[in-house]
Amino acid sequence: MYDLLKGLRVVEAAAFIAGPSCGLYLAQFGAEVIRIDTIGGGPDFRRWPLAENGESLYWEGLNKAKKSICIDLARPEGRELAQRLATAPGDDRGLFVTNFPVEGFLSYERLKALRGDVICVRVMGWADGRPALDYTVNAALGVPSMTGFADDPRPVNHAFPAWDFITGAYAALSLVSAERARRIGGGGCEVRIPLSDIAATALANFGLLAEVLMTGQDRPRQGNDVYGAFGRDFAIKGGRRLMVVAITARQWRALLQTLELEEQIAELQDELGVTFAAHEAVRYQHRERLYPLFEAAFARRTTEELAPAFEAAGVCWSEYRTLGEAARDDSLFARNPVFGRASQPSGLDYPVPGPAATLIGKPRGAPAPAPVLGADTDQVLAELLGMSSGEIAKLHDAGVVAGAPK
Amino acid sequence: MYDLLKGLRVVEAAAFIAGPSCGLYLAQFGAEVIRIDTIGGGPDFRRWPLAENGESLYWEGLNKAKKSICIDLARPEGRELAQRLATAPGDDRGLFVTNFPVEGFLSYERLKALRGDVICVRVMGWADGRPALDYTVNAALGVPSMTGFADDPRPVNHAFPAWDFITGAYAALSLVSAERARRIGGGGCEVRIPLSDIAATALANFGLLAEVLMTGQDRPRQGNDVYGAFGRDFAIKGGRRLMVVAITARQWRALLQTLELEEQIAELQDELGVTFAAHEAVRYQHRERLYPLFEAAFARRTTEELAPAFEAAGVCWSEYRTLGEAARDDSLFARNPVFGRASQPSGLDYPVPGPAATLIGKPRGAPAPAPVLGADTDQVLAELLGMSSGEIAKLHDAGVVAGAPK
Repeated sequence: MYDLLKGLRVVEAAAFIAGPSCGLYLAQFGAEVIRIDTIGGGPDFRRWPLAENGESLYWEGLNKAKKSICIDLARPEGRELAQRLATAPGDDRGLFVTNFPVEGFLSYERLKALRGDVICVRVMGWADGRPALDYTVNAALGVPSMTGFADDPRPVNHAFPAWDFITGAYAALSLVSAERARRIGGGGCEVRIPLSDIAATALANFGLLAEVLMTGQDRPRQGNDVYGAFGRDFAIKGGRRLMVVAITARQWRALLQTLELEEQIAELQDELGVTFAAHEAVRYQHRERLYPLFEAAFARRTTEELAPAFEAAGVCWSEYRTLGEAARDDSLFARNPVFGRASQPSGLDYPVPGPAATLIGKPRGAPAPAPVLGADTDQVLAELLGMSSGEIAKLHDAGVVAGAPK
Repeated sequence: MYDLLKGLRVVEAAAFIAGPSCGLYLAQFGAEVIRIDTIGGGPDFRRWPLAENGESLYWEGLNKAKKSICIDLARPEGRELAQRLATAPGDDRGLFVTNFPVEGFLSYERLKALRGDVICVRVMGWADGRPALDYTVNAALGVPSMTGFADDPRPVNHAFPAWDFITGAYAALSLVSAERARRIGGGGCEVRIPLSDIAATALANFGLLAEVLMTGQDRPRQGNDVYGAFGRDFAIKGGRRLMVVAITARQWRALLQTLELEEQIAELQDELGVTFAAHEAVRYQHRERLYPLFEAAFARRTTEELAPAFEAAGVCWSEYRTLGEAARDDSLFARNPVFGRASQPSGLDYPVPGPAATLIGKPRGAPAPAPVLGADTDQVLAELLGMSSGEIAKLHDAGVVAGAPK
């Protein structure tokens, strides 16, 4: 938890990963992020994995450091409340993140009518409003067709929802950028960020789209080979696997030296009339000749032998681990200052992350937990909308809002 | 190109994807981003894929909308110039993005000595400074062990460098957030963002780490099944495959209705004593019973039959396509306003993306191309450091800086 965005008050009405991770990043940088949930929780409130007490580890992971207000969003009075929260007055308010549809009660037009300079960041599926999720965008853009080994034609979906998380970070960047523009007189705006555009632009931004259009060919699936450089997984003595990459000449030389492959590589260079250190693509072009030499060298060595030599020489490598194995790596979790302990709704005690960034020399503090659903209902109504306790009580009585379960 | 960040002057000294994509996102939101390259280009300047004229489609994709200055970074005079650019005076300057090592001539200490409130966002591999790339972080965190099918034990690397791109967006968020804090009196700071912490926090942020620690079990690889809900790939008549997901009850009902599976599902519910619409996890728990019904229903239908019915009902789906097939989808590329034409150094004519976000009602303009290496050397030295043409000429003569090739 840092205070870079201290004072900003962001209202979030969003489910699943992209929208909530946007709010998470803002909250962990010090913004006050108020999450609106429908009474009893939205469609992601019981999303798996669940703890034994029924709380969602998914929800509590994505909603850390936020406040929670529960509103019956099916009723006109509840919808009006949500609109008023999204457009609350004040220089540092009127900042709204949502994945609600373009049309409807949280449309930009409705919000703008209440506050002319509202900033609304809307995460979407397809740009035209059709539903899409990370999984379907991934299939539509061709990534599963590029993933996996050439000897198996099945498409392979990514296991980590990358488009969702890129969208979340990019949405947070968009909101803070739009707030900067508003503060210096630029007014408000609606920013739409479809997962489909995040994916399409990302695949273009490192040259892959241009390559496919230029060559008229899809990039073939090539297992764990790193495109355009030397990199692959190799089995070591005992059967475990390592991922090794040499993009720079320095990494390449370090690898050869550690594996004592210099002579064999020199012979191969003479035979082929190339210099592998000259450019990483030379190593890629001749990778089928290189691999057997490396396979043999790795098969003779254990991690215990390789690790210190690799570290000393600056080789870029890692053992393949499962997440369970990685979880026992204290430098990543238990002793990593990015993680700490927090009283999450699940009651489980596990390493909880604060922001991924570290501000050197600034106190980081403990990571803030996710709220209990509805824990901040009354406070938010009083502070953002200036409601009296009598007005708030009436809303409770009418079932328009709800607090945390007693 | 939008002008949300107009006036900000960011200096970037970074290679590969994470750092340069941070600068790209800032530039496409209107910041002036000046990229420092060593004379002749850094380690990513000829990274594959290449165009026929030898220009890197990778580099020109990642460095769009930036300015370029070439400095001999091996020489003390060149290093001093880089330090002075990173710490140039002015309210909207002193903003630096890099992947150079923590120690060395671009250390925070060196920069801070020149400008006390400099903001330095440093993208790293491991948090302790050891080298890591997207591929090795991925292996170390266990994602390739979760990816792919249960009948094949090989680890499967992701084909898209997700950690790099999340890091880039998060670094851009960090820089704009830190600039906000500085403007209201918070001073400067060094922000370190290791790929390893981006990956570790992301895997924790949607409950996966907590699940693994709670159960003591890794999540098994399960092909293209969506965890905790109904979702998988299915072959349709003719052999192509679709990805279909039903997380919400509405998506589930739409899917059953379109596939005319309501009766069969009702029978299965009676047999199992469950209600599939009640929670997506019920569908996940009994997925092995559900799949055969869906397999049969899909195998009888073509995309031509399914697509209009799916769209009308609001089913969340997509055909699996290759990127080459997706590239012919005009709504994604050729007619997508997010893409346009730009005079890239490669000379190729292809759809080039601007920012992934769309500000409704604001003119987007054409996407700005990447610079020719060194094209802005003189202008940057004059504007940021106030150098005279005589001083600049001396630097050229001494080989400390270089401009674009004539």
